Amino acid sequence: MIMTQAAIFEQLWSAIADIGCDPVTGGYRRFAWTQADMQMREWFAGECASRGLELTEDRVGNQWAWWGDPDGSAAAGIVTGSHLDSVPDGGAFDGPLGVVSALLAIDWLRSDGFRPSRPIAVVNFVDEEGARFGVSCIGSRMITGALSPDRARTLRDADGLTMAEAMLAAGRRAEHLGPDPEVLARIGSFIELHIEQGRGLIELGRPVAVGNGLWAHGRWGIEIPGEANHAGTTRLNDRRDAVIGCAQLVLAVRAAAEAHGSLATIGKINIRPGGVNAIAGLATAWLDARAADEAALGATVAQIEREAASLDAVMAEESRTPHTNFDDALVSRLAGLLDDAPVMSTGAGHDAGILANAGVPAAMIFVRNPTGISHSPAERAEPEDCLAGVTALVSVLAELAGAES
Amino acid sequence: MIMTQAAIFEQLWSAIADIGCDPVTGGYRRFAWTQADMQMREWFAGECASRGLELTEDRVGNQWAWWGDPDGSAAAGIVTGSHLDSVPDGGAFDGPLGVVSALLAIDWLRSDGFRPSRPIAVVNFVDEEGARFGVSCIGSRMITGALSPDRARTLRDADGLTMAEAMLAAGRRAEHLGPDPEVLARIGSFIELHIEQGRGLIELGRPVAVGNGLWAHGRWGIEIPGEANHAGTTRLNDRRDAVIGCAQLVLAVRAAAEAHGSLATIGKINIRPGGVNAIAGLATAWLDARAADEAALGATVAQIEREAASLDAVMAEESRTPHTNFDDALVSRLAGLLDDAPVMSTGAGHDAGILANAGVPAAMIFVRNPTGISHSPAERAEPEDCLAGVTALVSVLAELAGAES
Repeated sequence: MIMTQAAIFEQLWSAIADIGCDPVTGGYRRFAWTQADMQMREWFAGECASRGLELTEDRVGNQWAWWGDPDGSAAAGIVTGSHLDSVPDGGAFDGPLGVVSALLAIDWLRSDGFRPSRPIAVVNFVDEEGARFGVSCIGSRMITGALSPDRARTLRDADGLTMAEAMLAAGRRAEHLGPDPEVLARIGSFIELHIEQGRGLIELGRPVAVGNGLWAHGRWGIEIPGEANHAGTTRLNDRRDAVIGCAQLVLAVRAAAEAHGSLATIGKINIRPGGVNAIAGLATAWLDARAADEAALGATVAQIEREAASLDAVMAEESRTPHTNFDDALVSRLAGLLDDAPVMSTGAGHDAGILANAGVPAAMIFVRNPTGISHSPAERAEPEDCLAGVTALVSVLAELAGAES
Repeated sequence: MIMTQAAIFEQLWSAIADIGCDPVTGGYRRFAWTQADMQMREWFAGECASRGLELTEDRVGNQWAWWGDPDGSAAAGIVTGSHLDSVPDGGAFDGPLGVVSALLAIDWLRSDGFRPSRPIAVVNFVDEEGARFGVSCIGSRMITGALSPDRARTLRDADGLTMAEAMLAAGRRAEHLGPDPEVLARIGSFIELHIEQGRGLIELGRPVAVGNGLWAHGRWGIEIPGEANHAGTTRLNDRRDAVIGCAQLVLAVRAAAEAHGSLATIGKINIRPGGVNAIAGLATAWLDARAADEAALGATVAQIEREAASLDAVMAEESRTPHTNFDDALVSRLAGLLDDAPVMSTGAGHDAGILANAGVPAAMIFVRNPTGISHSPAERAEPEDCLAGVTALVSVLAELAGAES
């Protein structure tokens, strides 16, 4: 039976549809080193094995599947792929679309008889979303040296488990963590295909775009103090309620984003003690802030810091990534190859940005999102747009790994 | 060796000091049917056995320890005690002080050679705080018929476990739940000793007071809708952020309490999906509201309901207890016995209130709290005030179980 390309895509895609899927929300909960993540990693290893790709795992847990010997070629490899973890109640496409498209692109290149003149790899970066330990892009930050091993090992999840303990439970040893220049040196160029997280391609009426950069962005943890007490007996004037301070902060965050044309969001709050009849003694809110340029981000964060200080809150930076320009020559080459595809930047963070900041020539391919919604079970991509993404990736890999060596 | 009363109190008290204590905060996490709660129940059973009290457990899990045959006396019994569960990060005294004081009062009555003319019991009411399943006073509400068995069985904890499942895991069968008029008929009077949750006795300069009633109070769950989306890519104008609505609600709750001279608090919030880089699709906030009279409570809740409606939020009552007057004659008798102790009402809810609303003559004894702080690891009572509480309870039990029969 000859399957259509759409049916082949659908077959590969459906194999992971149930992994880590919450039956109530339909969203995914694939957090680093959990059971769901391990199932995704196993699935990836199996798909690579069935294609004869050589799978290696680096010390932090990134999976690299090579077509060709990465150390036996004069030219460094062309790497594509993305990540397989998710945010809480995330969509199906954010991450996996890039990995599935990469595997299919290799299939199509082979069925066309393509013989690469330099090695090609598909990568699954571990813990891109940071949903478990609060720091995003842990896999790429670690190999590039952007995250210190000591800090990574001691990051804690919501249950108080450190990343070192979580890795150990998954059979990995965190004491070996560190920058990995050898792994990095194998990457001649990195092309990450990803679902668009916004409405740019809808408005342009195009199925794919080339990504040329990432907004400056960061995360901060903000602790708002209060005094825990009984909600039923403490007079209003005797209260120091951390939830009230937290509410004021949330509104101040929105106002700061509006004032500076940036994006700033509180999406996670932890309240202690957290009882219905207890006045809160501590609220912790996490800030996600992004802007198209460093000045706007700096002004946004400074305004929020002033508001936090007025609430006696302590604000600590958890991660910060400067504005990232992808490789100009690579972006132009890709846009030209893809029928003069539109070129756009994004407010989302990606492993491609971490690699670019470490000097790796990188670019992205975005696939149209018919609602613009991401980080939600409502995230979608049309099958024909997914195939257009694979087709684009085939052209790019053929060009980068074939034309020159 | 002859121990002082203070040393005996301290010895009994220290036996439970570590059970369910969070080593970081110093607060207690003794939630119904958890390991910590089971340890408290075991400790209580052991103390009762060592005193030759006959322990019975009713179908919902309240523990009754009888000195004398509760069904073999012309007059119904005099019951004292409180509860052994806690709010999250609760203090040591809220609940256990009443149980420990009751056990010591029996010891002191016996060492004085007192022979009761009617049975006396010490009770440990199960799940008074409602910290696990969101409804307070489950033990007393169930036996009085104030909580339906069907509703109780299907209440869920934060992990999604129903109360029926939690009881089964603790070896109890929730299918037998229901009102228990036979257990209730054994209670001639109920005296609950409790740490004061406020500053009334500090201001009066007295160690104990008699409680004459409870404010009207209730709990509501409020679901604020939003649309989950990516925090790094969704334009401000395209957002429907449930956390923003929740912040507006928190401030409106405080304003409503100020407007009507009541107490209204948000102490627990749940955000979905709850990722740092995800705009919230749903926020659930729990409202605790109380007032000295029904009109003020009604006006407070109505104002909050209008605000919730303006946010498209859904507000559902989880429990509501009307203003409760304890038994006037009993309150006067106790105040007279205790050196004309001050008489006061409280905004806190107690099992004594549930019983009073079911027609049981009830009153409370409050013990001074030097900071006024409760529902917090900072909750305290001075040893001499604790002994004053036991002394008061001895006088009351001797009067109620001795003078008349």
